Amino acid sequence: MSGTTFFSSRWVERPAHVEERSGGLPAGFRAAGVACGIKPRGARDLALLLCDAPEAVSAARFTRSGVLAAPVLICQERCALERLRAVVANSGNANAATGGRGLDAAAKVQGAGAMAAGVAGEQVAVASTGVIGVPLPSERIVPGLLEARAALRPDGDADLAEAIRTTDAFPKRASLDVELPSGTVRLSAQAKGAGMISPAFATLLCFVQTDAELAPATADLLLGVCVKRSFDRISVDGQLSTNDTVILMASGASGVRVEPESPDELALGEALDALMRQLALMIVSDGEGARRIGRVVVRGGNLTAVEASARAVANSPLVKAALHGADPNWGRIAQAVGAALPGTAPLALDVEIEGVAVCARGGAVAHDAEALAAAVSGAEVDYVIGLPGEGAETEVFFSDLSHEYVSINAEYTS
Amino acid sequence: MSGTTFFSSRWVERPAHVEERSGGLPAGFRAAGVACGIKPRGARDLALLLCDAPEAVSAARFTRSGVLAAPVLICQERCALERLRAVVANSGNANAATGGRGLDAAAKVQGAGAMAAGVAGEQVAVASTGVIGVPLPSERIVPGLLEARAALRPDGDADLAEAIRTTDAFPKRASLDVELPSGTVRLSAQAKGAGMISPAFATLLCFVQTDAELAPATADLLLGVCVKRSFDRISVDGQLSTNDTVILMASGASGVRVEPESPDELALGEALDALMRQLALMIVSDGEGARRIGRVVVRGGNLTAVEASARAVANSPLVKAALHGADPNWGRIAQAVGAALPGTAPLALDVEIEGVAVCARGGAVAHDAEALAAAVSGAEVDYVIGLPGEGAETEVFFSDLSHEYVSINAEYTS
Repeated sequence: MSGTTFFSSRWVERPAHVEERSGGLPAGFRAAGVACGIKPRGARDLALLLCDAPEAVSAARFTRSGVLAAPVLICQERCALERLRAVVANSGNANAATGGRGLDAAAKVQGAGAMAAGVAGEQVAVASTGVIGVPLPSERIVPGLLEARAALRPDGDADLAEAIRTTDAFPKRASLDVELPSGTVRLSAQAKGAGMISPAFATLLCFVQTDAELAPATADLLLGVCVKRSFDRISVDGQLSTNDTVILMASGASGVRVEPESPDELALGEALDALMRQLALMIVSDGEGARRIGRVVVRGGNLTAVEASARAVANSPLVKAALHGADPNWGRIAQAVGAALPGTAPLALDVEIEGVAVCARGGAVAHDAEALAAAVSGAEVDYVIGLPGEGAETEVFFSDLSHEYVSINAEYTS
Repeated sequence: MSGTTFFSSRWVERPAHVEERSGGLPAGFRAAGVACGIKPRGARDLALLLCDAPEAVSAARFTRSGVLAAPVLICQERCALERLRAVVANSGNANAATGGRGLDAAAKVQGAGAMAAGVAGEQVAVASTGVIGVPLPSERIVPGLLEARAALRPDGDADLAEAIRTTDAFPKRASLDVELPSGTVRLSAQAKGAGMISPAFATLLCFVQTDAELAPATADLLLGVCVKRSFDRISVDGQLSTNDTVILMASGASGVRVEPESPDELALGEALDALMRQLALMIVSDGEGARRIGRVVVRGGNLTAVEASARAVANSPLVKAALHGADPNWGRIAQAVGAALPGTAPLALDVEIEGVAVCARGGAVAHDAEALAAAVSGAEVDYVIGLPGEGAETEVFFSDLSHEYVSINAEYTS
């Protein structure tokens, strides 16, 4: 990863006090990714993350699905989520819809993780991703954890990111140096996700580490705010997962203490925000079969209306297919908004695509169709929708709908 | 259309008192379908339906979208919907999101329709289907209506059905003889729809005629009930249209009067129900690129929960892609239900596919995977979902997600 590859979207700016690194975890963290035999052909499928600082602080967010995977239930019921010191994550199997047997398996993995990491069981989070409804082979994970323990390294973030991939076409991680007023800290993160992506309040799998010293309330606040602005604003296929998990851990090993409502907190928050937004965009751009990313911004109306409209556009297979085909088919955008706002007709809707007004107060606007077609053939396409009234604004990032999405999801069980 | 082709789904039974005919409108109706130059290459794109009985009775339902097409607004604001005598419908252009200019064009079409049909303007419904956001060329429709008037025929239903097609792979129509206790009446219908299909309270375009004699309240009741059990229960892509319109017209020319709450009403209702359910299934099976139809039945919980769950399954691109690939991937069904019912974890969900239990009380059930894979490779696949509790039940019919759907919607503006 070169110095300019991570912050690659025009929709996320690298804060001036943030420097990209090629990799490496913050002080106080070690990680490993190994192959334990869940995935075929010896691919890495088991990750272990450990914070060596006994006073580590953490925060977590999970999917709101009514069908929670066993590891999510274990995290919520058996973890001290504000003082986690280790994470065990596997790919190749979601351990979801696996009933009591799945809970037993997740508990066994948590116990083995505690042994391997040398910490209390309640300080070990577990996370899984992969196929739903297949029993988790915990008998492969337990010995795998001993191997992972032996492989723990301060620069194990690349292996960790590799081991949590499923249909991801590329690994998603970053390592940043963040200059705070009180000193420099490091911030790193590893994420996965390409399908079944429509997070709400949490997301996919994403592990974030820093060597800043944070109070649990600060960690929770920063993570909560940044999740809302990043993973909560993306959709590949509108499908909320059973396993979404995001965990922030702070070792405090830098000696830089970030006090609540301080300039340090603001600067760290800006860095975390940029990091998580860019990771979220990487997940969208790696959306199964994706060729292009769209951003839909909706302004006006009220909070409920802008959210419903933005989600309706982002999840419309017609809009997504048009994005794929580089077709500036704004009629489908009007249709999606109309469906989201029943009973409001006639709706004085405005639509702009790549800055070109195509619909004003509900009617077509003459425009240079050829120039617009060229503008929507790039890697990122911007849609701005105006609803009558003022007051609210939101955005959702989404991928296109391609032949490859169908192939990935029709021809393989995942 | 042979005597056995219309009622082709195992999910709709032909009532014993209903006989299929090869075509033909009920007494008192004439129809025509001509080419007026909206579609390229001289394809039929303009339909005129006329009821010759001055005392005709009618009922209508429309889309609930907030972005209503101009013809829908004209119907709602300028029509006597309980005594319509004519319908002008065009394909190739939806006249939606066309602003004041679109309303002017739709009003002009209504006026020309009244001239051509020789009835009052308020007795002429207008309907459009096709691309959104393009001005309707009413200057082609007005002369086209004169041609259509000259072509009106009692067996013009086939031409009408042809003229309202857009991406439909096949025309959708039926003509039935219905034996009521008081005498035999005829019932016919013409429908179109293949994409942007997720009706609510109305649907797509569907015109239904009968020569039974009905009071306006009876027509409205029968249509309302049957729409709720047919077009409201289907989804191709979860996309509510701007133009959905369904109109029932009764000429009374058979002399058979159908009194409220009579055995005649019950028998006619059964026939109308079967007719509209089979038409709805034809629309799903002609869902853009569709290879297979799924039916998801959800039982238990409450009305809100079963409706949300059924829609979530029917509209999930992951479930639809698995249906396409004949993959009995029930984990995606559990995921979709979980997403629809946040905060209910752990959810004691039951899932049956083609009668095979695959998930019970939230956990996987051992089953013959090979036999199940064979069972889901047919033209119709049945999913039954059980939620904890009793009391509610619903069903939604849906199409699969195919490469062809992407091609149709990415490569062509429609």
